[in-house]
Amino acid sequence: MAERRTPGPVIGVDLGGTKLYAAVVGADGKIVARARKKTRAERGHEEVISRLIDCVKEVLQDAHLRAAEVPALCVGAPGPLDPENGIVISAPNLNWVNVPLKQILEDALGIRTFLDNDVNVGTYGEFKAGAGQGACNLVGIFIGTGIGGGLILDRNLYRGSNNTAGEIGHLVIQRGGPLCTCGNRGCLEAIAGRGGIVREIAFRTGRGAKTSLLERCANNLAEVRSKLLADAFAEQDPLVVQLVRDAIEAVGIAVGSLVNVLSPDTVVIGGGMVEAFGSWYVGAVAEVARQNAFPQCMANVRIVPAALGDDAGVLGAAFLAHEAITGRK
Amino acid sequence: MAERRTPGPVIGVDLGGTKLYAAVVGADGKIVARARKKTRAERGHEEVISRLIDCVKEVLQDAHLRAAEVPALCVGAPGPLDPENGIVISAPNLNWVNVPLKQILEDALGIRTFLDNDVNVGTYGEFKAGAGQGACNLVGIFIGTGIGGGLILDRNLYRGSNNTAGEIGHLVIQRGGPLCTCGNRGCLEAIAGRGGIVREIAFRTGRGAKTSLLERCANNLAEVRSKLLADAFAEQDPLVVQLVRDAIEAVGIAVGSLVNVLSPDTVVIGGGMVEAFGSWYVGAVAEVARQNAFPQCMANVRIVPAALGDDAGVLGAAFLAHEAITGRK
Repeated sequence: MAERRTPGPVIGVDLGGTKLYAAVVGADGKIVARARKKTRAERGHEEVISRLIDCVKEVLQDAHLRAAEVPALCVGAPGPLDPENGIVISAPNLNWVNVPLKQILEDALGIRTFLDNDVNVGTYGEFKAGAGQGACNLVGIFIGTGIGGGLILDRNLYRGSNNTAGEIGHLVIQRGGPLCTCGNRGCLEAIAGRGGIVREIAFRTGRGAKTSLLERCANNLAEVRSKLLADAFAEQDPLVVQLVRDAIEAVGIAVGSLVNVLSPDTVVIGGGMVEAFGSWYVGAVAEVARQNAFPQCMANVRIVPAALGDDAGVLGAAFLAHEAITGRK
Repeated sequence: MAERRTPGPVIGVDLGGTKLYAAVVGADGKIVARARKKTRAERGHEEVISRLIDCVKEVLQDAHLRAAEVPALCVGAPGPLDPENGIVISAPNLNWVNVPLKQILEDALGIRTFLDNDVNVGTYGEFKAGAGQGACNLVGIFIGTGIGGGLILDRNLYRGSNNTAGEIGHLVIQRGGPLCTCGNRGCLEAIAGRGGIVREIAFRTGRGAKTSLLERCANNLAEVRSKLLADAFAEQDPLVVQLVRDAIEAVGIAVGSLVNVLSPDTVVIGGGMVEAFGSWYVGAVAEVARQNAFPQCMANVRIVPAALGDDAGVLGAAFLAHEAITGRK
């Protein structure tokens, strides 16, 4: 049964590989205060968590709140993780293994703490307050260096039996295709993630292909961000245009497949690539998806760009924190 | 709220393209009586429904029951369909469009009637009484001429927003691959359904490839059933071995992708191809799937052959009928 009390403001935290972001979110679902810090993952988990605690203290101060006035905090962290026990099982980009984040934060801050997957909380943010509002069944796809996903099914965040659901970047759409960082071939992420596109550019330029991107990044492809790719695309660099078109087709095929399998009413597509390229990217994906799904599966499906940008994670985490303590949606 | 009365026995019906099958299922979930008839789809929907009504009357008689003693009946029918209003929207293999099956059966039989997708009811049967018992999140895959699927998520049959969820045969796993009957390329069904395999054999033999299958089917590939393929495979016909191995790899890749996206605890694989080839087929699929999913997604996932054969549909339909009138699982 729902616990019928109104909690105070809650805190949502986005624990990213490069950035920590904490926000106080009021009972009305609006962000009251924000604080950001660099993650400094290379300094190890104790240092990162200490920075995260400082970030939460800063945002509390900024909102003129004491920890005792905040009934809950939720962290969106890279997975896989154990949400029940609040443990980050493995986060390769942070170099963390089995970190009991919930316990550490509760001990340090005295605020009841919850933990969920970063892409799940971002998807939940878009569902509750962004482009996916009003959806019943929603697929969230976030395209950056890699590709992550989240599922809202029957209006609930769907985590699956191993709490790992939503690995949309590792749908194989091209058997025998390019090698993925996961070790398989032809995963969506290997074709359409920024990392996959840049690896393909490195491979092709290594064999003599030309691209203006090399000049733009001073021959350091490891430094290529989505914005740089988008600039090269806008100026119609042929290699970049070819690979980005190919990536869009791949995402469209994956979306079509997911619509066939999951029959969602809404697909929200966001992440650094979409932000850099603009909303036409999502329109182009939708066009391919519509050719790749049954008309009766695709009927009335909205395929839309994410609306909250960086705030999706902290908002989604805050909504989950709020719901965890109230039992209310 | 659940309605707390014990219903009498219910009837499950499987409306297939070639066969009608009705069963009376007791409150203990066991089949009490069965009746089967050929569908004769070519004679039109009125004739088919009249045969279906006769089939139900036969099974009632066989169980020594009057219609008034049976509180509900559920039909598993090819989709897409509208379960709320009990309408078969389109069933190409029956040549039906917008047939109000629920209303017609209720008028003729006086038994409250429910309608659901045939693969959904089969999956539900395996979940409640077959290989998927005890699962929380289950993917059902049925491989015959085509490939159908059903999803049980958080112990409920998941239908999706357009009631079309589970079209696992139309996951694209090989972009640009063989043409599928749906009009796209590289769908799982086009590679691993019996229809797709036989089309590829026709194509290759048309270009001079040899296979013992032509002799086995008296040069009529349209007549090739799963058993004939399994016989040719058992005798190591090189073309059949190559295509069946390729099909198994494709199913394994799709299962791996689905495990990554849905994090089920159980995958049940059945259908005519699995019945004809035997359970090693499912073991071979599982081996590929385990190489194609993240270890943390695949942890403790059971990949098992379906256990109920033809009974999955009538049993699943009966369980759904029972639950629809009692509100209980």
